[in-house]
Amino acid sequence: MLESIQSPQDLHKLDYQQLTALAQEIRDKIITTVTHTGGHLGANLGVVELTIALHSVFNSPEDKIIWDVGHQCYPHKLLTNRYHNFGTLRQLGGISGFPVPEESPHDIFRAGHSSTSISAALGIAIARDLNQESFKVVAVIGDGALTGGMAFEALNHAGQLGVDLVVVLNDNAMSIAKNVGAMSNYLNRLRLDPTLHKARSELESFIRRIPAIGGPASRLGSSLKDAVKSLLPGQLFEELGFAYFGPFDGHNIRQLQRALQDGIRRGGPVLIHAITQKGKGFTPAEENPIQYHGLGPNFGSAEPEQGYERAVSFSNAFGTALVKLAKTEPRIVAITAAMPDGTGLTEFSRAFPERFFDVGIAEQHALTFAAGLAVQGMRPVAAIYSTFLQRGYDQILHDICLQDLPVVIAIDRSGVVGEDGPTHHGIFDLSYLSHIPNLIILAPKDGAELEAMLKWALQQEHPVAIRYPKSETKMDPSLSFDPARMIGSELLAEGEDCVILAVGTLAHAAVEAAALLQPDIACRVVNMRLLKPLSEKALDHLTKGTDLVFTLEDNVVVGGFGSWVAKFYAASGRKRVITFGYPDQFVPQGTIGELHEIYGLTPAKIAAAVRRHLQAHLEYSRS
Amino acid sequence: MLESIQSPQDLHKLDYQQLTALAQEIRDKIITTVTHTGGHLGANLGVVELTIALHSVFNSPEDKIIWDVGHQCYPHKLLTNRYHNFGTLRQLGGISGFPVPEESPHDIFRAGHSSTSISAALGIAIARDLNQESFKVVAVIGDGALTGGMAFEALNHAGQLGVDLVVVLNDNAMSIAKNVGAMSNYLNRLRLDPTLHKARSELESFIRRIPAIGGPASRLGSSLKDAVKSLLPGQLFEELGFAYFGPFDGHNIRQLQRALQDGIRRGGPVLIHAITQKGKGFTPAEENPIQYHGLGPNFGSAEPEQGYERAVSFSNAFGTALVKLAKTEPRIVAITAAMPDGTGLTEFSRAFPERFFDVGIAEQHALTFAAGLAVQGMRPVAAIYSTFLQRGYDQILHDICLQDLPVVIAIDRSGVVGEDGPTHHGIFDLSYLSHIPNLIILAPKDGAELEAMLKWALQQEHPVAIRYPKSETKMDPSLSFDPARMIGSELLAEGEDCVILAVGTLAHAAVEAAALLQPDIACRVVNMRLLKPLSEKALDHLTKGTDLVFTLEDNVVVGGFGSWVAKFYAASGRKRVITFGYPDQFVPQGTIGELHEIYGLTPAKIAAAVRRHLQAHLEYSRS
Repeated sequence: MLESIQSPQDLHKLDYQQLTALAQEIRDKIITTVTHTGGHLGANLGVVELTIALHSVFNSPEDKIIWDVGHQCYPHKLLTNRYHNFGTLRQLGGISGFPVPEESPHDIFRAGHSSTSISAALGIAIARDLNQESFKVVAVIGDGALTGGMAFEALNHAGQLGVDLVVVLNDNAMSIAKNVGAMSNYLNRLRLDPTLHKARSELESFIRRIPAIGGPASRLGSSLKDAVKSLLPGQLFEELGFAYFGPFDGHNIRQLQRALQDGIRRGGPVLIHAITQKGKGFTPAEENPIQYHGLGPNFGSAEPEQGYERAVSFSNAFGTALVKLAKTEPRIVAITAAMPDGTGLTEFSRAFPERFFDVGIAEQHALTFAAGLAVQGMRPVAAIYSTFLQRGYDQILHDICLQDLPVVIAIDRSGVVGEDGPTHHGIFDLSYLSHIPNLIILAPKDGAELEAMLKWALQQEHPVAIRYPKSETKMDPSLSFDPARMIGSELLAEGEDCVILAVGTLAHAAVEAAALLQPDIACRVVNMRLLKPLSEKALDHLTKGTDLVFTLEDNVVVGGFGSWVAKFYAASGRKRVITFGYPDQFVPQGTIGELHEIYGLTPAKIAAAVRRHLQAHLEYSRS
Repeated sequence: MLESIQSPQDLHKLDYQQLTALAQEIRDKIITTVTHTGGHLGANLGVVELTIALHSVFNSPEDKIIWDVGHQCYPHKLLTNRYHNFGTLRQLGGISGFPVPEESPHDIFRAGHSSTSISAALGIAIARDLNQESFKVVAVIGDGALTGGMAFEALNHAGQLGVDLVVVLNDNAMSIAKNVGAMSNYLNRLRLDPTLHKARSELESFIRRIPAIGGPASRLGSSLKDAVKSLLPGQLFEELGFAYFGPFDGHNIRQLQRALQDGIRRGGPVLIHAITQKGKGFTPAEENPIQYHGLGPNFGSAEPEQGYERAVSFSNAFGTALVKLAKTEPRIVAITAAMPDGTGLTEFSRAFPERFFDVGIAEQHALTFAAGLAVQGMRPVAAIYSTFLQRGYDQILHDICLQDLPVVIAIDRSGVVGEDGPTHHGIFDLSYLSHIPNLIILAPKDGAELEAMLKWALQQEHPVAIRYPKSETKMDPSLSFDPARMIGSELLAEGEDCVILAVGTLAHAAVEAAALLQPDIACRVVNMRLLKPLSEKALDHLTKGTDLVFTLEDNVVVGGFGSWVAKFYAASGRKRVITFGYPDQFVPQGTIGELHEIYGLTPAKIAAAVRRHLQAHLEYSRS
C-alpha cells in the first residue's frame, strides 16, 4: 500500500483498518532502511500514527506541517513521494534525514537543531493572515525540544497574538536521553491523568462531600488545592494563552484525528498533547531508546570496527579521562545539554551523580550555569556538540569569557559529522570562538592528547575550549605525559620546502601527505595543539626556514585558525599562507571520508595541493 | 545617612523610619548623578526599596545577590561602598553602570545582557551545596528579562533540582519598552489579585452557593474553572517547581523583608513576586518610563546637539527609511526584540501596526520567526542591537542562512557604544557573521547609504545584514540615488602610496586621515559599503597600483573584515595588509571618542599609524 501512495491526499481514500495496516508498512520500511543507512530509528517509530493522522487531517503542502528538530520526519517523507528514493537516506546526494525544502514542497522549514518549530510556524501563520490566506499551520515538537528556551519565547509570543496555530506536543518523555527538568515532571503529572474526565469526577465527588454551609476556604487546605489542580490539566500552557487538549494516545490514529479536528475547530493557539513511545513497534528500540536514538550505518550487522588496537571514540576518551581526573579533583563538575551518552559522560554520571548535571536541551543555560559554578570555585566542564554550542555563543562571550572564568568547554563532534549533514556539521566553532577574548582553544590529534589537554585545562584560571571530532582514536592508558608539554605544538615531520600547520586529527592526514610528497618535496608537519593564544614569535619559530605556510583545519577557512595565521603574515608579507579547510558554503551530507575527499582534506588531495602551490610559488619567486 | 554607610551591614542598625529616609537619599543621589553622567534612571528608581530590603535581610557578600541585566544596580552600588566614587559612573576608568566583580566583592556576577541571573544563581547555589556551605543565593530578575528563553531554561532546571534559591521577580510591566507576551498578560492577571486572600474568599463564597447535593462537575463549567484558577496564583511557577509568594508591593520595605524571610524559611526554589514602578519617585520618569530608561550624559540640560544640519541617529534614519519603503512594499514586516524605540521603529509601529512585531526580549525567537515569515513570502526586517544579536547567532546560521532566506537583519549599535561598556559594545558582529555562508553584509557611512542599502537588501533573495553605529548621521531627503549603485564601493580619496579600505562611518575618519597625510603621502580611501561577498578581483581593483593595504573597521580585528582581506593577500603575498580595529580583548567603558582615541581609530592616530607602516614597508622593500 505504502508503495502506491503518491501524495498525502491518497490517505483520504483509506479507511481506519487500512491506515493501521499502513502504519505497519511504514514501520517495516523504516526498520529495514535504517538498519542499512543508519539514522534516527526510535523517534521515527514513535510518530508513525501521529504522522498518518496529521497527513489525513491536514492538506499538505497547502497546509504547513513543521517538524521540530526534524529527525522524526521519515514517516512524513515516506508519505510525501520519497518512498522510492528512501534507500538513499542520509547518503551523499541522497534523501536527507531532516526536512529540506529543496527536496520537497512538503518540507516547509529546514531543521536539525531543536526548539525552532513554534517560531517558524508562528511566522508562517502571521504571513498567512497578513496575506489573507486560510491554510492551516501545525508545529510538531517533542517534550525534549520544549525545554529549549526559544520554544518558550515562541509560546509566549504566540499565546499573546492569539493566531490560529496548532502545536502538537509529541511527548515521549525523552529528548535523546531521558528528558529532564521541571517541565518534564509537569508533563509526567499530566500523563498520569489520561483524561479530563477522571479529574473532573474526582472534583465532583470532593465537592459532594462539602457540607452545604461550607467552611472557610482557608480550612480546605491542600486537598482542595490538589483537586482543583487536577481540574486544570495543561494549566501551564493555558496560562501562556494556549488552549490545551489532551493528553491523547499518540498511537491511536482515530483519537489523534479527532483531537486535531477539534483543535482546528477551536481556533487560536492550540496545544495538543500526544503521548507516544520512542521506538514503538520495534522491541529492541522500545527497550533501549537511548541506544536506538541515532544509529550508524549497518547497525548490528558488522563486527566491532577493527582499527587501532584500543580504538575508542573521542567522546569516550573524554569521558574516561574526566572520570580519572575527577577522582582526585573534587571541584570538577560535568554538565551536558541532553547528551549524556553522546558526549561520553555516562560513566561520569554514575561515578559522580552529585557532580553531574544534565540540564536538558538548554545550551544557553548550561553555559551560564557553568559560569555560576566557576564563580564559586568549582571547575565545570560543559560537554556540548560543536553545532549545538552555536546556541550558547553569547553565553560563552558575555558570561564566561568577559569574566575570564575557568570553565572548560569540551566541544564534541567538531568538523564534519557525516550523514546528519549541514545542520549538524561542527565546522564553524573555530570561527565563532577565535575572536572571543580570553578564550584558550586547543585541539588534540588523539585521545592521549585529549586527556592531557583536559588535565591542563582544569588547572588554568581562564576559559578553555577543547575541540575534537566524531571519530575513533587511540588510547594508551600506560602513557605517562606532562600535560603542560602536551599543550605546546608537536613536530611530526621535518622539512624546509614548506610547512603544514595542522589542527587536531588532520595532523595525521598532513603526515601522510608529507610522506607522499617525499622525496622531491620536504614538507614539515606541525600538530598545533594550542590554537589560541598564538604569538607571532611562536609562529615564526614553527615556520622557520621556509616562507610557504599551509594551514589545515576541519573548519571553514573564514575566520578560523588559518585566517589568524594569514593575518600575521599579511602584515609583513614575509610568508605566503594558504589555508586548507571548508570553503565559504554549507557542506552537504555524506560520509566523513567522502566529505574530506570532496573538500580536499585527504592525504592525497593535500599533497597535490601543496605540490601545486609550491610550484606556483617557485615560479612567482623566480619572476 | 547614605554617605556614612560603609557596608550593607550598617543597614541592620537602622529602623524602618530610617530605612525609608535612606530610600529618599538614594533616589536623590541617583537623580542628581544620572542627570550628569547619563544612565539607567527608571530601572534604578524602581528598585530602591527592594535593594534596601535585600541588603537588610541578606548578608552580602557572603550571601550572593545576582542582578539580572544589571542596569538596576545603582542603589546596590550606593549601599556597597561606592557612594564616594559614584560621580564617575559610566565614565572612562570610573564606576560601571552594571555589576562588575573586579569592582566590588558585592558584585557577584557580571551582567549587561538579559535573562542570565537564574542560571548563574543556580550554579552558585549548587557549588555552595557541593562545598557544604550555607550562604543564601538570590537572583533579581525583571518581568522583561523573564521572557528571554534562557530564564525559562534555568527555571526548568532549578525547579527540578529543588535547591535553596530565591528568585525575586521585579515586575514593573516593562522591559525597556512596555513588556509583551503571554507571560506579561499572565503576570498582569496575578497583579490584579493583590493577595491570595481575596481569591480564596471568592472561592469560599462560590462554594457556599453550591447545593449540598452538588451537581455533575461538568455542569459547573467555566465559572468554577475561573474560581479555582484564582485560588492558585503563580500556578505557572508552581508547576515549574517553584514556591510562589506574592504579589507584594515592591515599594514597601517591611512587606518585602517579610516576604524574603518567609521565602528563605520555606527553602527550595522560591519565587517572590514584587510589583514595582519604573521611575518611582521621579515624576517625569514615572510618566515617561521609555524615554527615561537609558539617558545620555547631561540629559535635559544641553541644547539639541549641533552638527550636521539635519542630523539624526542612524536608528531614526533606519526607521524613517523603513516606513517610506513599507508604503509601497506590503510584504515588509518589522520585528524588534523589546527595542521599538531604540531601533527607531516607533513610527513604523504606528504606521503599520499589523506589520510590526515586538516579541519581547527574545532574540532567538525574533530571528526564526522572521525566517518563518520569509518562507511564506514576506520581507521581514529584524532590527536588533549588535551585542544582543549575539543571542541569535545560531538562528541566523541554522534557520536563516542555511535556508538562504531573504531576511534583512538591521544591526543597530555596531561598534563601540560608549558608556555602557564591554557588555554592550557591538564590536564582534563582523566576526560572528563573516563566516556564515550566504549572508550578505553591508555597512553604510551615513543615513542616505543606509536608506539605499535597506532598499537594495529588500530586493535580494538572500539574507542581508546591515550594520550601523550608535551615532548621528546626515539625512538628505532630497537625495535621489540608485540603490544598486550605492552598494558598490565608493572612492573617497585618490592616492597610490597606500589604500585604506574603510568600513561604515570610519570612512569619514579615513578621509580626514588621508588629508592629514597630504602632501607627502597620497593615501587612497575607499568606503567599502559591501563587505561580503567580496571577490579577489574586486579587491585587486580597489587596491590597484599600491601594495600596501590598510583595513579599518569598528570591530575586533580577529575574524572581521580585515582578516578576510588579509587572507586573500596572504596566499599570494602580493600585498601587505594591515588591519586597524579593536585588538583581541574586551573594550572598557568610556565615550565613543575616548575609545576611538585609545584604540587608534581617530584621524590623527590612523594617519600616524599609516605613516609608520609606510616607513617600515619602504625600509623592508629596500632591504
